Amino acid sequence: MQSQLKHVISADQFLDRTLLDKLFSLAQEMEAHDTNGKYRTALAGKILATVFYEPSTRTRFSFEAGMMKLGGEVLTTESAAQFSSAIKGESIEDSIRIIGGYADAIVLRHPQTGAAKIAAKVSPVPVINAGDGSGEHPTQALLDLYTISKEKKSLDGLHIAMVGDLLYGRTVHSLLKFLPLYKKITLYLVAPAKLQLPQIYLEYLKKHKISFQQLSDFKSILPKLDVLYMTRVQKERFADPNEYEQVKNLYVIDEKNIKAMKKSAMIMHPLPRVTELSPKIDNDPRAWYFRQAQNGLYVRMALLYTLLCR
Amino acid sequence: MQSQLKHVISADQFLDRTLLDKLFSLAQEMEAHDTNGKYRTALAGKILATVFYEPSTRTRFSFEAGMMKLGGEVLTTESAAQFSSAIKGESIEDSIRIIGGYADAIVLRHPQTGAAKIAAKVSPVPVINAGDGSGEHPTQALLDLYTISKEKKSLDGLHIAMVGDLLYGRTVHSLLKFLPLYKKITLYLVAPAKLQLPQIYLEYLKKHKISFQQLSDFKSILPKLDVLYMTRVQKERFADPNEYEQVKNLYVIDEKNIKAMKKSAMIMHPLPRVTELSPKIDNDPRAWYFRQAQNGLYVRMALLYTLLCR
Amino acid sequence: MQSQLKHVISADQFLDRTLLDKLFSLAQEMEAHDTNGKYRTALAGKILATVFYEPSTRTRFSFEAGMMKLGGEVLTTESAAQFSSAIKGESIEDSIRIIGGYADAIVLRHPQTGAAKIAAKVSPVPVINAGDGSGEHPTQALLDLYTISKEKKSLDGLHIAMVGDLLYGRTVHSLLKFLPLYKKITLYLVAPAKLQLPQIYLEYLKKHKISFQQLSDFKSILPKLDVLYMTRVQKERFADPNEYEQVKNLYVIDEKNIKAMKKSAMIMHPLPRVTELSPKIDNDPRAWYFRQAQNGLYVRMALLYTLLCR
Repeated sequence: MQSQLKHVISADQFLDRTLLDKLFSLAQEMEAHDTNGKYRTALAGKILATVFYEPSTRTRFSFEAGMMKLGGEVLTTESAAQFSSAIKGESIEDSIRIIGGYADAIVLRHPQTGAAKIAAKVSPVPVINAGDGSGEHPTQALLDLYTISKEKKSLDGLHIAMVGDLLYGRTVHSLLKFLPLYKKITLYLVAPAKLQLPQIYLEYLKKHKISFQQLSDFKSILPKLDVLYMTRVQKERFADPNEYEQVKNLYVIDEKNIKAMKKSAMIMHPLPRVTELSPKIDNDPRAWYFRQAQNGLYVRMALLYTLLCR
Repeated sequence: MQSQLKHVISADQFLDRTLLDKLFSLAQEMEAHDTNGKYRTALAGKILATVFYEPSTRTRFSFEAGMMKLGGEVLTTESAAQFSSAIKGESIEDSIRIIGGYADAIVLRHPQTGAAKIAAKVSPVPVINAGDGSGEHPTQALLDLYTISKEKKSLDGLHIAMVGDLLYGRTVHSLLKFLPLYKKITLYLVAPAKLQLPQIYLEYLKKHKISFQQLSDFKSILPKLDVLYMTRVQKERFADPNEYEQVKNLYVIDEKNIKAMKKSAMIMHPLPRVTELSPKIDNDPRAWYFRQAQNGLYVRMALLYTLLCR
Repeated sequence: MQSQLKHVISADQFLDRTLLDKLFSLAQEMEAHDTNGKYRTALAGKILATVFYEPSTRTRFSFEAGMMKLGGEVLTTESAAQFSSAIKGESIEDSIRIIGGYADAIVLRHPQTGAAKIAAKVSPVPVINAGDGSGEHPTQALLDLYTISKEKKSLDGLHIAMVGDLLYGRTVHSLLKFLPLYKKITLYLVAPAKLQLPQIYLEYLKKHKISFQQLSDFKSILPKLDVLYMTRVQKERFADPNEYEQVKNLYVIDEKNIKAMKKSAMIMHPLPRVTELSPKIDNDPRAWYFRQAQNGLYVRMALLYTLLCR
């Protein structure tokens, strides 16, 4: 892995179980390091620049904390779109070339699809895509996968539901790409008709012979699930507010319907949540979303280490 | 102290002279450390997140500088309200739980009264309240008290005036709470009628038998004062601009009326000031406000050390 | 140098070739340090505060990266005007006095001409001017000069053109000041009539007997140039958009007209660029602007080291 990986731009770069196994095993070492301090100076003298043209405190902090825990330093922007030369008309290429002269790696978040790829092309240092518009957010997919893999050993044979906004949900799209790496998955796609998965992803599933069903409600399948991957449905997607209210109330896990789920089920969410997960289930052992966010730290540490410690 | 203190939420947690003495003695060690470097690596490997939903460069910098001087690292937000998932409807609880997975302590500033308490309830790591709306700002009260204690040994027997906006002044309210710990204080409450101290605090003073007078002018008492605690009167509090102008000019210390004060008097101010303290007195030995701000650094270092070095 | 320099406010402080030689030789050591790590802990335990009342990610990052590479720590503001006590009416003097109690040096960017000088007057720690309105931006001038000096040994005998907005271009004005230190320079001032160099600078050139020509086009001189210093012409300077379009297209270097230039010519630009330099020439060895930005890191490291390592 260390010899191949130059940038982290797309989930496609990781569609390889050997590679994933290596990455996840390193992420587990990073988790252990949080106590044993094994990697405390691994990236001493290295600088990471987090260049966020769209704010995202959570993602930014997880990269920055990861860098610091490995002994590195951080240059930070909270809202580069507003505060940088972008407003003077500077191209993303120019910004990246210059920042790449100051930093040893760049984490980029940008509203424009494809921005990370453009950046990687000119950057003298590794670029990590932390979300480019409706494009990719590969480290989110990796941490989702890491979370399931760690608990369930593998995704082989699991019953997995993806619920909510499957049309625009970037994290859902990225996660789907990995399913062909595993055997005998049963997939449930739960969404209102107008927010169902785009055709291109349905064809991907068919091509790779993933067994799936499209549903508009999840009551019937709750008892079968090993993994319930919830997403936030955004109000802005609906012209008719009544329609939104209906959907909003349909896809909710609370202290009542969680009872229908297996003891071993995992409830996941990329966060932030709004109403789709009741805070009353937060302390249920099946509520994995906070541990999932925590795992983001370790996966990102593993990537930073891989890119920078050569 | 070290074994008890988990979060720093309210001045009420510190209403104990033994505790204060310990804290202030540690703060003085921190002040000495600025030259001798004794604690340079005390918090090495620890991360502090400053989560400011309301910007405050001064307060943020003093915590961050304190953390750095103890060898720790800092995750920073300049304006979390604008740039975080809060705008997507995420609860403060969720944000804190996640950030608490990346950082070893959180300094929180939030416009909503009670926010720090809510945060502490769910946080896996210590939370320090750096101001929650019209609620509390305990570290400001502690640095005020530290400044007086260091110079005057104790507040016992002092003549103290609090001047300006006593109605909304959060720092005044917090400082008042500590007065019952000391003996024979004489207190002067100087404010325009409409900005006098709220009834609840007047009753607190009565209950604790603190001797006080309410005044609308301070000319007559200037010669008696050991401590003059000035605050900024905000224009927005007055419907009638003329009324504001009058008050603004009434509570001003300048090179003329400072002459009426004792050689040993301390002029304090939580800052920022506008017109209430003339820059012409800045070099007078009685002008303590910059040293007061500087003391904030040492008190905050003492707190960070107490919370994190176990 | 180390014994004299307290603040870096104006290019005027550096109008001395012995001083420049020392600074540039130190900058080259810093460049070497990027590989050999000689100065890795030079500023350990020191804190730099970057106080930017106007955002500038590039300049901020270069100072911050420089500080980190020397082992120091950084307190950062992305947009102090919006987020600090300035909006409550606090004076720049008060802000600097307080921040100067937390940090060991302050880099200040401020929209108001003269702000850095005002700050230096009250600051307990060194202040570096990172741009004060239409005033000065001395470190930019120093990095420009360093870039030419490193490649051409000296500016003696060079043919130098300054192109674009010579009226408002702060970097051009600062750079001009240094020309009298060198011998036999031929200067071309290329700008539309309404953006030509202010009278005061023309008189400075005459007084110091710098040979110069004012031109409205640069085609004829391209083959003669050793240094072509381009600047961005801002649309806002023109009432008539057609006039802007004409100028915009007049001062452009692209893969065609670069052929007219000497093999040894240097094309420079303070960046950001918009259309005045075609990305197609970026990989031409004469395109120096990215290396120029990179040199800013080393010059700023040399200054930080000089100010802080005593």
